Amino acid sequence: PRSDDCLTSLHQNSRRQQTSRQISRNGRRCIVVLPSGGHHLPSGGGMGAGAGAGDGGRGGRPAGATGDPRQGRLHLHLPQRRHPVAVHGAARSVPQNFRARSIRVRITISLALSFCFTAYTSHNADSLTPSVCRVVESVGEGVTEFQVGDHALTVFIGECMSCKHCVSGKSNMCQTLGLERKGVMHSDQTTRFSIGGKPVYHYCAVSSFSEYAVVHSGCAVKVSPTMPMDRICLLSCGASAGLGAAWNVADVSKGSSVVIFGLGTVGLSVAQGAKLRGASKIIGVDTNPDKQEKGKAFGVTDFINPAELNEPVQQVVKWLTDGGADYSFECVGDTGVVSTALQSCSDGWGLTVTLGVPKAKPEVSAHYGLLLSGRTLKGSLFGGWRPKSDIPLLVEKYANKEIQVDGLVTHDMPFSDINKALELMLQNRCLRCVIHMPKRQD
Amino acid sequence: PRSDDCLTSLHQNSRRQQTSRQISRNGRRCIVVLPSGGHHLPSGGGMGAGAGAGDGGRGGRPAGATGDPRQGRLHLHLPQRRHPVAVHGAARSVPQNFRARSIRVRITISLALSFCFTAYTSHNADSLTPSVCRVVESVGEGVTEFQVGDHALTVFIGECMSCKHCVSGKSNMCQTLGLERKGVMHSDQTTRFSIGGKPVYHYCAVSSFSEYAVVHSGCAVKVSPTMPMDRICLLSCGASAGLGAAWNVADVSKGSSVVIFGLGTVGLSVAQGAKLRGASKIIGVDTNPDKQEKGKAFGVTDFINPAELNEPVQQVVKWLTDGGADYSFECVGDTGVVSTALQSCSDGWGLTVTLGVPKAKPEVSAHYGLLLSGRTLKGSLFGGWRPKSDIPLLVEKYANKEIQVDGLVTHDMPFSDINKALELMLQNRCLRCVIHMPKRQD
Repeated sequence: PRSDDCLTSLHQNSRRQQTSRQISRNGRRCIVVLPSGGHHLPSGGGMGAGAGAGDGGRGGRPAGATGDPRQGRLHLHLPQRRHPVAVHGAARSVPQNFRARSIRVRITISLALSFCFTAYTSHNADSLTPSVCRVVESVGEGVTEFQVGDHALTVFIGECMSCKHCVSGKSNMCQTLGLERKGVMHSDQTTRFSIGGKPVYHYCAVSSFSEYAVVHSGCAVKVSPTMPMDRICLLSCGASAGLGAAWNVADVSKGSSVVIFGLGTVGLSVAQGAKLRGASKIIGVDTNPDKQEKGKAFGVTDFINPAELNEPVQQVVKWLTDGGADYSFECVGDTGVVSTALQSCSDGWGLTVTLGVPKAKPEVSAHYGLLLSGRTLKGSLFGGWRPKSDIPLLVEKYANKEIQVDGLVTHDMPFSDINKALELMLQNRCLRCVIHMPKRQD
Repeated sequence: PRSDDCLTSLHQNSRRQQTSRQISRNGRRCIVVLPSGGHHLPSGGGMGAGAGAGDGGRGGRPAGATGDPRQGRLHLHLPQRRHPVAVHGAARSVPQNFRARSIRVRITISLALSFCFTAYTSHNADSLTPSVCRVVESVGEGVTEFQVGDHALTVFIGECMSCKHCVSGKSNMCQTLGLERKGVMHSDQTTRFSIGGKPVYHYCAVSSFSEYAVVHSGCAVKVSPTMPMDRICLLSCGASAGLGAAWNVADVSKGSSVVIFGLGTVGLSVAQGAKLRGASKIIGVDTNPDKQEKGKAFGVTDFINPAELNEPVQQVVKWLTDGGADYSFECVGDTGVVSTALQSCSDGWGLTVTLGVPKAKPEVSAHYGLLLSGRTLKGSLFGGWRPKSDIPLLVEKYANKEIQVDGLVTHDMPFSDINKALELMLQNRCLRCVIHMPKRQD
C-alpha cells in the first residue's frame, strides 16, 4: 500500500544523497549563471516508465509542438550543506506532451520563494523549500481546474481527492500524492530535470528553486491573482503548519495555556493560532532574545530564554501554568526537545504536538511515565491541512485580515542576493526571506 | 505542585529499594508464618509527622481504646524479585486514633487478591498487586461514606474530588491521592507498617497483601456486599485498565480496526472494550499460542503469533487492515513494542495507546516520521477511570452482565498456594490467579 511507500521515503534518502554527491563533484560552490544549451529542464513528460503515447498537452503552445529552446532559464542546486547555492542556467525545450494531471509552472516577476530552515538543514536538498507561489505556464491532459496564467501555490503534499485518506476527511496523508522525498514525480517515479544528460531530482514534488517545474496538479492550489504572491507563498508551508497545529491538531481551547518551543515562523504561527482560539497564556521559549518582542506581536504572553535560566525550562513552565501547560508545541526540529515539551505539559490531559523535522537524531524518546500519567504526543505534517481543500480558506482569511502573515517576512531580497538570505537563515537572523525572481521578457 | 511529586515518584524508587534490601537481609525467602507479638502492623495513625492530637476514630472500637494485641495477623513481603513470598505473622494493636479520611480495611474469608504481573516484575514490591477487595474494619474521622462492615475495592490511585484534576472531569491524576510509589500514606508521608520496630512500606496506597491495611478513604470504593468479591476485585486494576483504554483513552469507534499487543488480562479487556464499541477487526498479537482461543472469547477476530512470522508484525497488520489499524494498544509492558504498535497503525489518524509498565528500558522511542505522518501516542493509567466516580459504573455493568470479568480468572487458590500462583504468573500460564485468604475467627 501507498502508506508503506511513504514510510520508506521518510526513512531513507540514499538516492538524494547520490544526487548531491554527483553535483558536489562538479564543484559548483558559488553562484554561477551559465546560459547554455542542450539541456532539457524540465521535460513535461514522455520520458518516464509507463508514459502514455499521445497524451497531448494543452497550454500556451499546441500539443506536439517541437522544441523552442530559449536561453538562461534558472535552476538552483544546493551542492552541500551550508555552502552557497549554485545557479545553473539552462536552455529549455518545450515538452512534446504532458502526462495527465500535470501542469508546468513558471516563476516570473513578483513570484516569491521563502527559505525554510528545516528543508535546508535536514536534507541534501537540490531545491530549497516548498514555500512557493507560481504562474501556470502549461497544463497537461485531464487538468480542468487550471488555465495558463493562473496563479498557484505549489505544496509539498498533494491531495488526489479519491484515495482512502483524502475521502476520510480526517487525514492529509494522501496515498497517491503523499510526501515525496525520492526526488521524482509521483505519477511515473521519474524526474523531469536533467543537466548534461544526467538526472537532477525534484524536491518534495514542488522543486521550488527552479524557474520552471512540472508538478502534479494535485500538488497545486489555485489562488486569486489579486493576492500578493510574495506573501501568500508562506501559506504553502510554515505559516499554515503552525496555524494548523494549533487549530487542527491540538484544537486549542479558549482559556487554555500553551507553551511553544522555538519562535520561528512555525512557532509564531502556532502562537497566532492559539491567540485566535482564546488561549489565556501563551509561553514562548527561544534562545534568541530578539524573539521576545516578535513573539508579542503574534500573541506570546510570556517569554522564556532557556539560556538565562538556572533551572530546567519545564519547571518554569509548570510554575507559570500551575502544574503544566494544556498544550505544548515542539517547533525547533530537535527530537531532544520533545521530551522537554512533554514534561512541560500537564498530567492527565497535556498534549504535545511535534512539528519539527529533526536535523540530527531522528528518534523521539520520552520516559514512559510521561505518557502513563495521561499525556498525549501527536505529530503533524503541514498542520493537518489538506492542501486543495483547506488552503483556499487560509488565503481567504489572509484577504480578510483575520490572520497575519506579512509580519513573518523579515526580508525581501532580489534573486541575486540569495546567498545573503541563506546566511541570514543560518545565523538565525531572519524569519522568512522572500526571494523575488528577476522579471523576464519572453 | 502535586504533579511534580507524581513525576518524581514515577522516576525513582530508592526508598523502596532500601526497604527491599533490609528485608532481604532478614533472609526470608520462603513462606513462614510466624505468630509473634510486639509489632504494630499497621497503626492507623498518630505516629507520623503532622499527626493531629485527639482526632478520634470511629469504628468497631471506641476512639482512644488501648491496644488489644491479637495473634497471627498476616502480612506478606516480597524479599527479592522472583523469590517466593515470605509471610510474616504479627500481632496488631488497635490504633489509638485514626487520621482524618483514613479507613482500616481487613481481608477476611472470600476476599480476593489477584496477581498482577506488572506490579510484581517492575518493582521491588513488598506487596504484590493493587487488585484487591476488602471489608472495612474501622473508619477514621471525617469519613462519612464508609461504615464498618462495608465492602470496598481499594485502588492504587485515589480521587479527592476537590483538586484541579478531580474537578476537571477529564483526568484521573488526582493531585492529592495520585499514584503513590514512595510507600507511604498520602496524608502524612509516613508508613503504617513496621516489623521489629523498623518501618515497612505500603505499596501504591493499597498494600494488597497485608491482612490489615490503612488506606485513605479516597482510595477506596464502596461496593455492594452482594457482588462476588473474588471477581470484582479485578475491576480495581487490569480489567478496568483495558476497558478504559478502549473506551476513555482511544474512544474506539464502530467499524474500526484495532490491534492489541499482548493478550493478558489488560489486552483481553481492551479487546472486550473494542468489541462492545463495534470494532469490526480486532487483531490480537501474542507469542503464546494458547491466547488465540482465549482471545476469541473476548472479541479477537484475528490472531498473530510473532514467533511464527517471517516478516515484521506491523507488515502483517498493515496487510490485514489495508494500510494500518485505526488503533493499536501496547499491553506488554515493553517500550520496544511501542514503536511496533505505532508502525502498525495508520498514517493520518492512527492512535497508539500504551498501557504497560515496562520491566526494563523505561524510555519509549520512535522514529519522528511515525508521528509526523499523523499518528498519535497516548498513555493512560487505569484506563483513564476516576476510581470513585467511575468504578461503581463498571461494577453495575458487571452485575448486569454487560461486561465479562469471570473469564479472566484462570485460577482460584487458597492462600497457602500463593507461591504456586506466583510461578504460574512467571511462566505465563495464567491470566489472573485469585488468592482466597483463610477464614479467621476473631
